[in-house]
Amino acid sequence: MTTLKTWVTVPHNSDFSIYNLPFGIFSVNDDAPKAGIAIGEQIIDLAAISELGLIAVDASYLKQKTLNEFISLGKKITNKVRLDVQQLLSIENSPLKNHSEVFVSQKDAKMHLPVHVGDYTDFYSSIEHATNAGKMFRDPENALLPNWRHIPVGYHGRASSIVVSGTDIHRPMGQVKTNDMEVPVFKASGNLDFELEMGFVVGKSTELGERVSTKNAADHIFGLVLFNDWSARDIQKWEYVPLGPFLGKSFASSMSPWIVTLEALEPFKVQGPEQQPEVLSYLKYEGEHNYDIKLEVCMSSSTSEETTISRSNFKYMYWNMMQQLAHHTVNGCNLNVGDVMASGTISGKDESSYGSLLEISWGGKKPFELKDGSKRTFIEDNDTVTMRGFAEKDGKRVGFGQVTGTILPSK
Amino acid sequence: MTTLKTWVTVPHNSDFSIYNLPFGIFSVNDDAPKAGIAIGEQIIDLAAISELGLIAVDASYLKQKTLNEFISLGKKITNKVRLDVQQLLSIENSPLKNHSEVFVSQKDAKMHLPVHVGDYTDFYSSIEHATNAGKMFRDPENALLPNWRHIPVGYHGRASSIVVSGTDIHRPMGQVKTNDMEVPVFKASGNLDFELEMGFVVGKSTELGERVSTKNAADHIFGLVLFNDWSARDIQKWEYVPLGPFLGKSFASSMSPWIVTLEALEPFKVQGPEQQPEVLSYLKYEGEHNYDIKLEVCMSSSTSEETTISRSNFKYMYWNMMQQLAHHTVNGCNLNVGDVMASGTISGKDESSYGSLLEISWGGKKPFELKDGSKRTFIEDNDTVTMRGFAEKDGKRVGFGQVTGTILPSK
Repeated sequence: MTTLKTWVTVPHNSDFSIYNLPFGIFSVNDDAPKAGIAIGEQIIDLAAISELGLIAVDASYLKQKTLNEFISLGKKITNKVRLDVQQLLSIENSPLKNHSEVFVSQKDAKMHLPVHVGDYTDFYSSIEHATNAGKMFRDPENALLPNWRHIPVGYHGRASSIVVSGTDIHRPMGQVKTNDMEVPVFKASGNLDFELEMGFVVGKSTELGERVSTKNAADHIFGLVLFNDWSARDIQKWEYVPLGPFLGKSFASSMSPWIVTLEALEPFKVQGPEQQPEVLSYLKYEGEHNYDIKLEVCMSSSTSEETTISRSNFKYMYWNMMQQLAHHTVNGCNLNVGDVMASGTISGKDESSYGSLLEISWGGKKPFELKDGSKRTFIEDNDTVTMRGFAEKDGKRVGFGQVTGTILPSK
Repeated sequence: MTTLKTWVTVPHNSDFSIYNLPFGIFSVNDDAPKAGIAIGEQIIDLAAISELGLIAVDASYLKQKTLNEFISLGKKITNKVRLDVQQLLSIENSPLKNHSEVFVSQKDAKMHLPVHVGDYTDFYSSIEHATNAGKMFRDPENALLPNWRHIPVGYHGRASSIVVSGTDIHRPMGQVKTNDMEVPVFKASGNLDFELEMGFVVGKSTELGERVSTKNAADHIFGLVLFNDWSARDIQKWEYVPLGPFLGKSFASSMSPWIVTLEALEPFKVQGPEQQPEVLSYLKYEGEHNYDIKLEVCMSSSTSEETTISRSNFKYMYWNMMQQLAHHTVNGCNLNVGDVMASGTISGKDESSYGSLLEISWGGKKPFELKDGSKRTFIEDNDTVTMRGFAEKDGKRVGFGQVTGTILPSK
């Protein structure tokens, strides 16, 4: 990585360094939402710099409440916008220095869901999580199902209930039947959980019947976000056989507001775990397609400070995004710009790296403590869950900010 | 039902009688798609009659490539449009008689997907189908899973690959592992199937956290369509545990182009099957919410005439649409206008009423014959599957037309 300097003040350890420049949708006061790029503690108003003639994309694509139309312009254009902004923020005689009006403080901005999500798919690609979940939901002796090492297992999720970070969520009600009950009851979920995930945003559509190879998959990935796949374990457990998770998940999923481009993450590529047995040809890949992104989950009650309850890493994924995308399209299923594919819970080998409370409290059997001394197995009302993630190498940091959400009592 | 007469020529046994008047999106030649109502063998151009001042909705809502914005106006308006059209087609001194230009022959029109489907949910609400599938996919002795009589089981499907009737579909490729194989192989699906379903189109959105009762559910249902949930059984069988059907379904689902309103179906309401054990309160309902809609599935090869291979009825559903919608929102999941919820395969008790080839050929063990003498267990390349449905009472017929699709060889 070439070393770059920006004349904008960027705090040490900021996720939004000159190397990052993620895209998002923001608004100020009652103004209409529009596209921006984050730098340090500020946002560059992309429509405003377009109108100054400083980037080669019409402002009409940027004065939108989602990034879908902008992303649809294609990587040749969206990458150029990012690189042009990088240069405008780096060069000594930058014309932006005379245009402080194009900068908005992140403190003054409201962030919105960055894309309209047409379809949302959730994978299940961490071998540690799949093994842990299998032990608890099914048979401890045969935790990993026979198909798991052959297929990046996934399912269709609910797109309508994806919300942006900071949105409060009411505890879901639903049908629950525990082993000691004769019949199910209708109640507020008692085992409310999070899932630490990352999601990628599709950047290039495909036609029905079109397959994307692992080799070409990166062309179809615009960028990544942090993703919290909130899960009501008691509802899920009773409903999920045989057609999979439904209401245990569809009450809400939370997404971080800044989409970090695949290009910004390029320096942080690493080799993924060895895949044994060998996968079918359409899932084989060349090169490094895992990403070394440090992740953490923090939890707080309404009275406590944050407690870090998990430290994981996106590099643990058994199945990488190129394989997920190749698999998703191998039957001819079409993709649209803005579709989100999430990784599934990202757990590592150590207990300290588990990505859900199901695993951390081992199905509710092992309580843990928050900073105020209160005990938790699952999420209680008014608890806040915050996930953060960043990649760092040679002192250069590219981060995601955070995805946070507070659980309110049931309605 | 009051008896109505129309001055438009409507063939005997037409699905699109004066009592029906379903909404759809059509185009002629290279003109932009727009909204229409079917009557007999013709389509009324709604934008055109709006511009004549004959219906009280602005043409801008009707000159659209989907019905979403029109439906979003609410039932008070959309029902009035349908009733106003009914009157215009019934009265002797109708101003439409002088405006033949507002009628388009269905033969000359191309039909489009009537709505943009934000989210698509597929239920599994026929007890006969769930029992048959359970016997073949799982344990013949415990075919119906313990949750089935308590929950209208459903899962999220893929919205992007829903296509309008008449769209050809390529046989999907995918991973398959039969019991005699040591490892999975990548191949064209050998067990390609249809599922005879009906779907309803959501007509009124809800907010995240909002629950809809069975009593209010009808307000949120705009109308119904025929729905073919194409299924690759071999792909499905290997992939579906534990997170449900995915690529075995997402290559395509086909929908009939005319949305028959819930109001047009009102006279055909019947009592549903008794539900035992008693369901939880939020699933209880009053009145009749099943619909007596006769359904048939026909199949033909490229050289044969159609063979009717199933005759079923929508009234067989164990779980009704009001229960499905109440269940779907009970956790606070939000709905958008245009969302589609499909019934799941509609099978009756008799073999002649099974709604999928999985059941008709009993997992491939019982071949059946087409009119050209060729045998089938599953769908072969160049076969066409056509589903039709109508309700009829006192000589008054309200039908759906058809949903048809031809399977082309794998790409």
